[in-house]
Amino acid sequence: MRQRNVKNQDEILKSSEKYIDKPDSLKGNWKSLGKYKKIELEIGIGKGAFISEKARIHKDILFIGVELSKGVTSLAIKKIQRFEDEINEKLNNLKIISINALELIDIFYEQEIDKIYLNFSDPWPKSRHEKRRLTSDNFLKIYKEILKKDSVIEMKTDNRYLFEYTIKNINKNKMEIEYITLDLHKDIEDQKIKQQEPNILTEYEEKFSKYGPIYKVIFKF
Amino acid sequence: MRQRNVKNQDEILKSSEKYIDKPDSLKGNWKSLGKYKKIELEIGIGKGAFISEKARIHKDILFIGVELSKGVTSLAIKKIQRFEDEINEKLNNLKIISINALELIDIFYEQEIDKIYLNFSDPWPKSRHEKRRLTSDNFLKIYKEILKKDSVIEMKTDNRYLFEYTIKNINKNKMEIEYITLDLHKDIEDQKIKQQEPNILTEYEEKFSKYGPIYKVIFKF
Repeated sequence: MRQRNVKNQDEILKSSEKYIDKPDSLKGNWKSLGKYKKIELEIGIGKGAFISEKARIHKDILFIGVELSKGVTSLAIKKIQRFEDEINEKLNNLKIISINALELIDIFYEQEIDKIYLNFSDPWPKSRHEKRRLTSDNFLKIYKEILKKDSVIEMKTDNRYLFEYTIKNINKNKMEIEYITLDLHKDIEDQKIKQQEPNILTEYEEKFSKYGPIYKVIFKF
Repeated sequence: MRQRNVKNQDEILKSSEKYIDKPDSLKGNWKSLGKYKKIELEIGIGKGAFISEKARIHKDILFIGVELSKGVTSLAIKKIQRFEDEINEKLNNLKIISINALELIDIFYEQEIDKIYLNFSDPWPKSRHEKRRLTSDNFLKIYKEILKKDSVIEMKTDNRYLFEYTIKNINKNKMEIEYITLDLHKDIEDQKIKQQEPNILTEYEEKFSKYGPIYKVIFKF
């Protein structure tokens, strides 16, 4: 989701205990924020529904939402606050940072991360924007640095071109595909997949899955 | 297409100059059948529309259709004869053999083949039948033997599970994906792909493309 500025965005961010303004100061020490067994990232959090549901289910995991736009980040934070009010619970294991994912390397140590989620990322369809796609070589290189050995990247999208591109790039980079479906919702309906937990719908997914299939791939280095 | 027996199948096969009864006798000498620059195989020819159209377009290539069932082979041969009558032309560069594709190794020398087509192959959905899928490890091993270095395998299917399986197996075997689309007909419609020649529809493809996408992948060792 691209969005430039939101009124009062800086105040919203500063007044939230979810938002971490100087994430590089925590490099190597993220687990010290609580008693966490694992750290998982979502890159591009949209309105934050996916990562806040994850945080609600897995209290022993620290979830960090990464979002480029401060405007989007501030809207997500407001939405997450409403979600907390609804479930009457504070999601202390959820933190949000607003950076370009290329900077992840300055924020996490090698192998500090246990999993990365990419949900409905911007497809950047023009070939001159290839480098901005979150599954392009330059991002994969960074994920490889910060991910633990054998840890996976989970990607969902409804964008066929981004998914085709991602498959080719996984293949080119000789990464391993652990799981792939070209119609996630049909598989769930048919009970073709044994899931440890239900598929967490992003807001986008809820809206757009009626127009075409949702693609999903789980892959690793 | 699976089909057991067809009335007079043996007579149909014997009386056709397209049909080669003892293909192993030509091992290493296939090009001697004419002045051919290349040899291309289709494994599983169905009614033969794809390979006969290919043969019509490319006179300098020897096309060999491989079909397991003698019944299906005899029906295809009759259909190809009708096609020849229609276009008022003899497709001398098209030969048909009826074998199990596992025997290809006895029929072609190493690197004798320039391309392999797999069109709408039987998906064999049960996992205990995995070995029968034409993109399983045991078949890939054989294709690797008979294909020239850098030659490709082109696969089309409407079966999502077979396609997901194939992508995973290409990846597992560290083969290279040259091209992939999750909706071939849409891409053709949108002129997203520059094709050297029009997409040749198989009978099956013509019938079933209205029910869902046609998947295509071009890959090599």
